[in-house]
Amino acid sequence: MRTHYCGQVTEALIGQTVSVAGWVHRRRDHGGVIFIDLRDREGLLQVVVDPDTAEIFAKAEHLRSECVLHISGIVRARPEGTVNANLASGQIEMLAKELDVLSMAEPIPFQLDDKHVSEEVRLKYRYIDLRRDEMQKTLKLRYAVTRSMRNYLDNNGFIDMETPILTKSTPEGARDYLVPSRTHEHKFFALPQSPQLFKQLLMMSGFDRYYQITRCFRDEDLRADRQPEFTQLDIETSFMDENGVMGLMEGLTKTIFKEGIGVEFDYDFPQMTYADAIQKYGIDRPDLRIPLELVDVADLLQDIEFKVFAGPAKDPKGRVAALCVPGAGEMSRKEIDDYTKFVGIYGAKGLAYIKVNDIGAGIDGLQSPIVKFFPDQVMQILERVGAKDGDIVFFGADKAKIVNEALGALRVKIGEDRQMFTDKWKPVWVVDFPMFEEDEKTARVAAMHHPFTQPKATTEEILASKNPGQMLARAYDLVINGIEVGGGSVRIHDTNMQAAVFKLLGISDEDAAEKFGFLLNALKYGCPPHAGMAFGLDRLIMLMADRESIRDVIAFPKTQSAACLLTEAPGLVDIAQLRELNIRLNKKVSENAAS
Amino acid sequence: MRTHYCGQVTEALIGQTVSVAGWVHRRRDHGGVIFIDLRDREGLLQVVVDPDTAEIFAKAEHLRSECVLHISGIVRARPEGTVNANLASGQIEMLAKELDVLSMAEPIPFQLDDKHVSEEVRLKYRYIDLRRDEMQKTLKLRYAVTRSMRNYLDNNGFIDMETPILTKSTPEGARDYLVPSRTHEHKFFALPQSPQLFKQLLMMSGFDRYYQITRCFRDEDLRADRQPEFTQLDIETSFMDENGVMGLMEGLTKTIFKEGIGVEFDYDFPQMTYADAIQKYGIDRPDLRIPLELVDVADLLQDIEFKVFAGPAKDPKGRVAALCVPGAGEMSRKEIDDYTKFVGIYGAKGLAYIKVNDIGAGIDGLQSPIVKFFPDQVMQILERVGAKDGDIVFFGADKAKIVNEALGALRVKIGEDRQMFTDKWKPVWVVDFPMFEEDEKTARVAAMHHPFTQPKATTEEILASKNPGQMLARAYDLVINGIEVGGGSVRIHDTNMQAAVFKLLGISDEDAAEKFGFLLNALKYGCPPHAGMAFGLDRLIMLMADRESIRDVIAFPKTQSAACLLTEAPGLVDIAQLRELNIRLNKKVSENAAS
Repeated sequence: MRTHYCGQVTEALIGQTVSVAGWVHRRRDHGGVIFIDLRDREGLLQVVVDPDTAEIFAKAEHLRSECVLHISGIVRARPEGTVNANLASGQIEMLAKELDVLSMAEPIPFQLDDKHVSEEVRLKYRYIDLRRDEMQKTLKLRYAVTRSMRNYLDNNGFIDMETPILTKSTPEGARDYLVPSRTHEHKFFALPQSPQLFKQLLMMSGFDRYYQITRCFRDEDLRADRQPEFTQLDIETSFMDENGVMGLMEGLTKTIFKEGIGVEFDYDFPQMTYADAIQKYGIDRPDLRIPLELVDVADLLQDIEFKVFAGPAKDPKGRVAALCVPGAGEMSRKEIDDYTKFVGIYGAKGLAYIKVNDIGAGIDGLQSPIVKFFPDQVMQILERVGAKDGDIVFFGADKAKIVNEALGALRVKIGEDRQMFTDKWKPVWVVDFPMFEEDEKTARVAAMHHPFTQPKATTEEILASKNPGQMLARAYDLVINGIEVGGGSVRIHDTNMQAAVFKLLGISDEDAAEKFGFLLNALKYGCPPHAGMAFGLDRLIMLMADRESIRDVIAFPKTQSAACLLTEAPGLVDIAQLRELNIRLNKKVSENAAS
Repeated sequence: MRTHYCGQVTEALIGQTVSVAGWVHRRRDHGGVIFIDLRDREGLLQVVVDPDTAEIFAKAEHLRSECVLHISGIVRARPEGTVNANLASGQIEMLAKELDVLSMAEPIPFQLDDKHVSEEVRLKYRYIDLRRDEMQKTLKLRYAVTRSMRNYLDNNGFIDMETPILTKSTPEGARDYLVPSRTHEHKFFALPQSPQLFKQLLMMSGFDRYYQITRCFRDEDLRADRQPEFTQLDIETSFMDENGVMGLMEGLTKTIFKEGIGVEFDYDFPQMTYADAIQKYGIDRPDLRIPLELVDVADLLQDIEFKVFAGPAKDPKGRVAALCVPGAGEMSRKEIDDYTKFVGIYGAKGLAYIKVNDIGAGIDGLQSPIVKFFPDQVMQILERVGAKDGDIVFFGADKAKIVNEALGALRVKIGEDRQMFTDKWKPVWVVDFPMFEEDEKTARVAAMHHPFTQPKATTEEILASKNPGQMLARAYDLVINGIEVGGGSVRIHDTNMQAAVFKLLGISDEDAAEKFGFLLNALKYGCPPHAGMAFGLDRLIMLMADRESIRDVIAFPKTQSAACLLTEAPGLVDIAQLRELNIRLNKKVSENAAS
């Protein structure tokens, strides 16, 4: 129907007759002539409709934005002074010789270049919203990146394989989406939170290297960067350890950044232990673009009178840390108050600070409500954090968890507010994660990654472990600019070790058999050592495309209440359908409340 | 961990030290030496363990089939007389110098080369079953084909895009899988039967060419070639008509056959109308490898006394057809009886036949229980079907539907039984499908393809139609060897036409608005003409890999009762989970029956 995409009509075609098809992006009358900017996937083309071609002109007079046209015409250079350097086709225009209206458009609910459309309206009319240049670019980038991933993995001997969507509850620990079975009365499928066990089974099946770009599902209350269904690049390899997997996935990351957005990393990604990340950045996904670090000062403050610092300094579960912000000594009272409120979100009860006016003047050169409580220690603290004149030093003193979260977040907030980024991109591997974490309230032990991760310990050590919190895991995360792009681990490939980990997690033999019996069984019949990783595709694209919301990188996303505003899913269903599934509706919560 | 895959160790490596990892495929002791056939994804390698290396030998003595090993050793030529020409590595062997047992295996439930393992056992221990050579080959072919498809579509400007899995009931008409929403009380998501509406919305969004290899779901009672979840190659294009789409997809088909299994089609696929297919083959997915055709003979038999033929011959909904099988005149009474039973499955009340012994002798040269009923017409019938001496001619006379199904199936059955295939591969496009079909019982009109297919008619003609059964659709199917590989259509891109089709289908305005309101709306805001197609990937791979069951081309398939024997999905869930979803279980049907 067309000879070229609009965006492909360039000076090379001057004098030729071409035909194009697309949407009326803009129409304007100027000097008795109608100008149409016709838009398709590849760009814009200016079409000129001359009153000499009366029939076409009559059609063009009735066109609205977003009408769909098929136009043939002659390409010619634009008159001088009307060239648009911002367009590929900006040097030329097309003089219309034939024009068909393929689809008239009613007045559209919002203009494509309107930046102030609510997200609700954008999602309801997603098919219009997706025509915007930035949505087109983002989804094309998504495609370019997945294509690049596939090519890389294809070239590295990986096999793309599919795993079931209708499956069994998987052990990620989030809430499952359930699907009632019609043929197996009162039983339910679960939608997978990840293909974890199936990919391990594929290793036991001898496929050696597997990948899949696949949908995963979690029925959780949604945050800004979560969706009920999300996409994962999932890989697994046999006979490879953590270094092998990290090397491969680092190569993949470099490839997609280069091919997707032209960013080249000409260095090996650094590695950092989990313990170091927490100590220096308060978080296991540090944003290393920001050149600020938390510094422990508890050892200097254990014996002072000031309980706010001395208490946490003496508490084994406490932490006292300082964060020096160079050149921020001019910070206003209001700013400091705002940051104090900000750390309050994370449970911090206050935000002590020292402004360093003249370090040579000793304590008199400092401005601070707290230095009076530790005059003998303050200079040593300032030396330790490397404070100079004009700096400000913040303090956190509380349970370690609160200090880490509060100062970790403050570090990023200040870094962003003051535009302190040293680099555009800062990848880092975080390694040596703890194998287990203890729930503070229940004191129950849970797997930090998942229970199929291999601990850095033997089966005997696992069984004898008195302090599982100390045990490390063969797990690794890739973090870029403070965003966890992916994570993985070496898996357990031995039945006894797997049983020992289940035991430590308090999973009874019956529960283990019921939930994971097939895996424990499979481990008995020849299981290769294996390891793998998964990348969160949506978040990765959000990062690469520099978008604020994960919903901007998904063609048809759901809202934070897990609804689709376009199709109005979820919807009501017939009672007959439910009867076939042997389920019925509970009384409405509202009705229950009323009764 | 390894330097080579087992199957990659060839004569080129003689004298070198290599290391490999894999499964013990076979172990045998011969002349005081232990031979291990080590297996990995790429093949087998014969490893020799010499008693001189005592430590390794001791380990090797305890190995069972399917143990996982890591072995280093020196490659050497096999002694003369022990060369195995069937293996890539059959010229050489490896003398083990180091051997680690990575995983011991318990005795496995079945041997990989045992051809008589029940499918139930194979599915329960799928991770062992998948190690079989033929399963490895089939799933690698599946990967090769999808990769080839992607490359082809990438090269043709298609964009891989994802559509939701948690969505709204779609209009394919099969039973939906439902997913209760937790956050929207008493509402349900449906799993998509296809991405039909979303891909149309992507065309309205201006992406121009879309593809996706995606999972679809139908909660139907399963036949041999159906699965509750199945995979579809789904494409859609804007500004392209049926010829454009068929051309593209024919190109894709040729590419995947060439790259996947080395089959080259050096001709354009023929096209056949639906009406012709039914007339000649009784079915809309004809197996053209079989050189037999149904021939109408009703016109010759309307006035005879024999009601069995004359009745259907006069009935406008009846059909009388003949099927001549060349050279099958020797067919035994028992064979004919068996075929009579066979057509009975399709509702045929009998199977009349004529054996042509000596056509020159006229009616006396025929052997048949029926020729006496139409002595004056028989020679003309034989002439029309082209019968020659030694042939047999079968007859079907009944409602057209029964004759078509019975003789259509008989044609294929005889073709297979007598190995009458003229070609290994016979693709054909079937076109000009009816737009609507009438349910015989309810007399209700339904869309044959789906209600978004464009009829070969204007909106006015649709609204005025008195005989929708006559209306054709701009739909097309690709059939290879009697298997429907894919189907597609030009879609409606006009609100009024879409509304007219809904009206003809008896869908009320309210229903249309509730179910497809977003589509009707979207059509108003600038919808390009568009068309698309979907290939059933599982069936296609089954065809290309020459496998009997669709379950053999899926890594983790479900049984015909929609269960996974490996993971035992679907499973029971906690009452608490159901309470969160605001649903509960109906009384068991069995309990209902008892009460």
